[in-house]
Amino acid sequence: MSDRSARLRVSNFSISLDGYGAGPEQSLENPLGIGGEDLHTWMFKTRAWLAMQGMEGGEEGLDNDFVGATFAGIGATIMGRNMFGPVRGPWPDDRWTGWWGENPPYHHPVFVLTHHPRPPVRMAGGTTFHFVTEGIEAALAQAVAAADGADVSLAGGAGTIQQYLEAGLVDELHIAISRVLLGGGERLFGDGLGRLDGYACSDLTSSASVAHARITRTG
Amino acid sequence: MSDRSARLRVSNFSISLDGYGAGPEQSLENPLGIGGEDLHTWMFKTRAWLAMQGMEGGEEGLDNDFVGATFAGIGATIMGRNMFGPVRGPWPDDRWTGWWGENPPYHHPVFVLTHHPRPPVRMAGGTTFHFVTEGIEAALAQAVAAADGADVSLAGGAGTIQQYLEAGLVDELHIAISRVLLGGGERLFGDGLGRLDGYACSDLTSSASVAHARITRTG
Repeated sequence: MSDRSARLRVSNFSISLDGYGAGPEQSLENPLGIGGEDLHTWMFKTRAWLAMQGMEGGEEGLDNDFVGATFAGIGATIMGRNMFGPVRGPWPDDRWTGWWGENPPYHHPVFVLTHHPRPPVRMAGGTTFHFVTEGIEAALAQAVAAADGADVSLAGGAGTIQQYLEAGLVDELHIAISRVLLGGGERLFGDGLGRLDGYACSDLTSSASVAHARITRTG
Repeated sequence: MSDRSARLRVSNFSISLDGYGAGPEQSLENPLGIGGEDLHTWMFKTRAWLAMQGMEGGEEGLDNDFVGATFAGIGATIMGRNMFGPVRGPWPDDRWTGWWGENPPYHHPVFVLTHHPRPPVRMAGGTTFHFVTEGIEAALAQAVAAADGADVSLAGGAGTIQQYLEAGLVDELHIAISRVLLGGGERLFGDGLGRLDGYACSDLTSSASVAHARITRTG
């Protein structure tokens, strides 16, 4: 907890019915693990997602409302290094600039947690990737400053969210329980996470594809 | 898989948002573990549940429909010993006759998996508890015979359902994802369960209290 007024929010973090945020055997060719892409099928169908890719059409309704609100009121994003890319260890060069092409969907500063320093990377459309080596609290402080009064989005992956949850730094966690079974992989609610004291589900709704649970601080 | 026509169905098996079917530190005083009773709050509010207890009132709607259908078309029930009671090891005497009082809500034969033989216990209202020591397939065969063409309900707990899932013997698994966080306990989808090949979610709906997912065989 801090006295910051900016909130740290996780939006649309998809897990399977059996609790996995990524499938088993994650690899370069399969960054979401076996079956992991199926977790996000519900999102790819929405009008808001397609619009972010510059495409028209797509479904409206509950799922679309959640996707459309992802970046509403958000001024900066934090993500783990594995979400930024498959490169491990020291950065060999500056060629890897994320999964999202020349114009990433963030359009604001993005803080990437890493053990290996690297100069910021400025992309088209207002996204700049900053590399933070001083840990999760430093990344949050930098993101809050960059967001300049707006909220901060915590994008993932599961391990990064767990670290912020354990530190009590997450203000809102929206999980999207997707109607798939993965049978293994990376859990969001892993056995080591323990009791989330001070958090409760404030809102539960569902489409035919995904159940949305919003978990927020109590009291 | 067998050529039986009776289906083995799990109904209203409640798990938390973080995946636990019972809370941590299960004990005699706390058979569902710490916080575990909260998993079932949604059910206790329904008209169908209250009617089973001989009471009036309660909520109608989606959750009530699921609870009301629990025993529809069911001719026999299977449960693990821990669901039947807290007694461990050989039965010291015949005094323990389940958690449900003189007139249990089953009103049909119930097959209790145990390593320790015991004569059947006939209760009021048509429930008879049979104790099966020959394993899960023997219990299923006896339950199918007793159900006489009707379906068989697999009541729980989590470990018993896992055994039947691993053996490919479950035809329908309805999980009720309750809007609580337990932070630990007994998982339904434990790390050892592995991939449920041949199963998929066929139906996802939600009230404000619980998301209902029906998992059935594919193809």
